[in-house]
Amino acid sequence: MGFHRKEHEAHVSGKIVTLEDLAVGQRYAGREVTLDADAIKAFAGAFDPQPFHLDEEAAQASVFGRLVASGWHTMALTMRLLVESGPRTSWGLIGLGADDLRWPRPVIPGDVLRVESEVLSVHPSTSKADRGTARLRVTTRNQRDEVVLTLTTTVLVPRRQPA
Amino acid sequence: MGFHRKEHEAHVSGKIVTLEDLAVGQRYAGREVTLDADAIKAFAGAFDPQPFHLDEEAAQASVFGRLVASGWHTMALTMRLLVESGPRTSWGLIGLGADDLRWPRPVIPGDVLRVESEVLSVHPSTSKADRGTARLRVTTRNQRDEVVLTLTTTVLVPRRQPA
Repeated sequence: MGFHRKEHEAHVSGKIVTLEDLAVGQRYAGREVTLDADAIKAFAGAFDPQPFHLDEEAAQASVFGRLVASGWHTMALTMRLLVESGPRTSWGLIGLGADDLRWPRPVIPGDVLRVESEVLSVHPSTSKADRGTARLRVTTRNQRDEVVLTLTTTVLVPRRQPA
Repeated sequence: MGFHRKEHEAHVSGKIVTLEDLAVGQRYAGREVTLDADAIKAFAGAFDPQPFHLDEEAAQASVFGRLVASGWHTMALTMRLLVESGPRTSWGLIGLGADDLRWPRPVIPGDVLRVESEVLSVHPSTSKADRGTARLRVTTRNQRDEVVLTLTTTVLVPRRQPA
């Protein structure tokens, strides 16, 4: 995987927000990342060891007809781009769950992915005064503007501290 | 991540099934896998670069109070154990989507995870005679029998070929 922590931290941007700063319809977009065959195979070797994710020749005989990325690889990259580009809080980006995860199209070597997220709803906690949740719609597209992943996720968000 | 393809293939077991072999209530269970701090940090460095996944000391000051695995790491490991232990078809284990993904408890270094899956429903395709789908309930537990991940996924399954 060969990534260093500092490389990633450098990509995180945007001011730190609290629940009070979030509003329905707010959108976030981040940088692009290119997925190559070596990365596809490395992820698959660790987490989704199936012929159509591991080997070009074997993949030709599969339902996909070619090497494709594991859907969980696309999801993991989506999380990385979301951490870098989505709402940034002092607690980090803490997902409580995910729903409606779909992969409408496969990701293939050379694809350039980018992630957009949108605030669907904002919910102050009824039991804890220091926090709330927000639901985000997350969409990952390739360089042809085709959607390759969608999901809805609920994230934990701190509230503004009384002065 | 340092896994080799052959190591994984050796773990795949069970006879190859078609849609006709699947029935509601069938269960599958697989081997255990131990997650250590180095693996947690390596995954996080690539896909979820946040302090509570990357560094013990920084994690102490976080909402979690200690180093925890990325939920997407737990999900990726769950996929690996499911590929090895779930229903095995000639097409592989091809997920069309996932719903109701939850992480009821964090995964911490040293946790030993195992995955169980259960067939919730079986659906022959109404348009393509060679295939159908099955919905699986997937549950990942730690060595204390605590649930650390649940999801429901729909997988593509080939039908038996006419003789």
